[in-house]
Amino acid sequence: MSLLVVGSVAFDAVSGPRGSVDRMLGGSATYFAVAASYFTPVRVVGVVGDDFEEEHHQVFLDHGICTEGLERAPGKTFFWSGVYSQDMNERRTLDTQLNVFASFQPKLPPHYRQSPYLFLGNIDPELQSLVQDQMESPELIGADTMNFWIEGKRKELEKTLRNIHALIINDSEARQLSGEWNLAKAARAIRALGPHTVVIKRGDNGASLFRDGETFSTSALPIEEVCDPTGAGDSFAGGFMGYLASQRTAVDNLSRSTLRRAIIYGSVMGSFAVERFGLERLRHLSQEEIAARFQEFRHLTHFE
Amino acid sequence: MSLLVVGSVAFDAVSGPRGSVDRMLGGSATYFAVAASYFTPVRVVGVVGDDFEEEHHQVFLDHGICTEGLERAPGKTFFWSGVYSQDMNERRTLDTQLNVFASFQPKLPPHYRQSPYLFLGNIDPELQSLVQDQMESPELIGADTMNFWIEGKRKELEKTLRNIHALIINDSEARQLSGEWNLAKAARAIRALGPHTVVIKRGDNGASLFRDGETFSTSALPIEEVCDPTGAGDSFAGGFMGYLASQRTAVDNLSRSTLRRAIIYGSVMGSFAVERFGLERLRHLSQEEIAARFQEFRHLTHFE
Repeated sequence: MSLLVVGSVAFDAVSGPRGSVDRMLGGSATYFAVAASYFTPVRVVGVVGDDFEEEHHQVFLDHGICTEGLERAPGKTFFWSGVYSQDMNERRTLDTQLNVFASFQPKLPPHYRQSPYLFLGNIDPELQSLVQDQMESPELIGADTMNFWIEGKRKELEKTLRNIHALIINDSEARQLSGEWNLAKAARAIRALGPHTVVIKRGDNGASLFRDGETFSTSALPIEEVCDPTGAGDSFAGGFMGYLASQRTAVDNLSRSTLRRAIIYGSVMGSFAVERFGLERLRHLSQEEIAARFQEFRHLTHFE
Repeated sequence: MSLLVVGSVAFDAVSGPRGSVDRMLGGSATYFAVAASYFTPVRVVGVVGDDFEEEHHQVFLDHGICTEGLERAPGKTFFWSGVYSQDMNERRTLDTQLNVFASFQPKLPPHYRQSPYLFLGNIDPELQSLVQDQMESPELIGADTMNFWIEGKRKELEKTLRNIHALIINDSEARQLSGEWNLAKAARAIRALGPHTVVIKRGDNGASLFRDGETFSTSALPIEEVCDPTGAGDSFAGGFMGYLASQRTAVDNLSRSTLRRAIIYGSVMGSFAVERFGLERLRHLSQEEIAARFQEFRHLTHFE
């Protein structure tokens, strides 16, 4: 079933202990869409500038991603550059140029409005609400957010949260949003704000799902040679939402085992994302590789 | 099969958001021994002072723990006091009084020397070596250490490590010992120092086992009301080593599934330890409660 994602499409410059790349396609919607495309048809809503060329567009097309909602505006595409610490544990932003993204007002092509699955990437919560308002009645709405909005647009974010089903955020964001250090308590507090499901990404410590009467946790695959963590969280969300959308079940009928598999597929896509710079690894996966890595997670975590 | 532990027996004063206790029985050997006693017969080597009374001795006896190796010295028992932060994420030591522990020289009763399983608790690596020298030929030697020894007695610690099988430490210690932030790399580096098995405890993020051709990770049980984290790591080690000792297999024959279950039993005992102050919860467990919590870990982490 169709999965609509709204978020940033960007050019990134990344450097770290494994090398650097001056300019490559990135952005939360891009990582999400490419990861999700292995599971389900994806539609993307975002904005790009004059510097978004055919080769960049082709990345989406190669994955069967519908780009009808990808607006082209005069000016430059959103640009971000950052540097990772020697141990890959910290990231410092060097430069953020919003460019055409500064005046982005998401407009959904008419047939996008019936998309049964929606993911609101990490953008201004007012824009997230604007997208929600244009949708007819999606069966499952997932969302992401970040410290910047939690701090600066709390009220608007709370409005978005009231109307979503699943929030997918990282541990520090969960702590900041809830005011609770303990993640089980944090998830409970966030669920009280609206979403019935809270997924907390814990980086190389794994991910946890909290839902009424259900908690599931997975460890992350130990990867010795992390090349570039950029987009890992968005790829996780893409795998998670993409798998759920592929199951064609209404939100009330999501079984425990479907949700658990979705967390694993999210982790699978996140683990691929970090192996190379940018989309390099994520773009060239086979269904066999995805299935094999799913089994690696089973091997990593199961006991008799 | 008999499991011998050498380490500290102490009185602790602990305070945190859930209350405080002025003085209670603690110490790494105590937590380890009580946790392990649910799985296998345990012998303890340590030192206590005049203030160690019958009621404290009774805690060991209640668990069938042999205290013949628990030396009584004139003076006071090791005393530690600490305070946990409001979010339970940080611990600050307020006071450490080594007392009789300052001149502790572990002496093994003759029949202890044949113990097939040995755990060297977190004490001066020179004392750890001293214990190793007194043993005949234990089948499995596990050990713990801490930042203080990694920093101050690196050479002596490396000597200990050359002659142990399994090192059970937390993530920050693994990083400090190896100089690697990435835990898979850290485990590889530590294994090169001697131990064929490295268990890394990641607090409320779970635990991982690294061994030749084998990696296993479990998540921690999300516990909303952590009362007192003191001794959780020692209880983990006790559950891990205690379960292995109960399996009566030589170290070369430890099966993958046995090792995995040992990690889960370690996690089970650690999860009980934090629920109440000190040994309060750990002392009063039934085999049924342990079995039920083992199943909770399965429920938390398995997927189809």
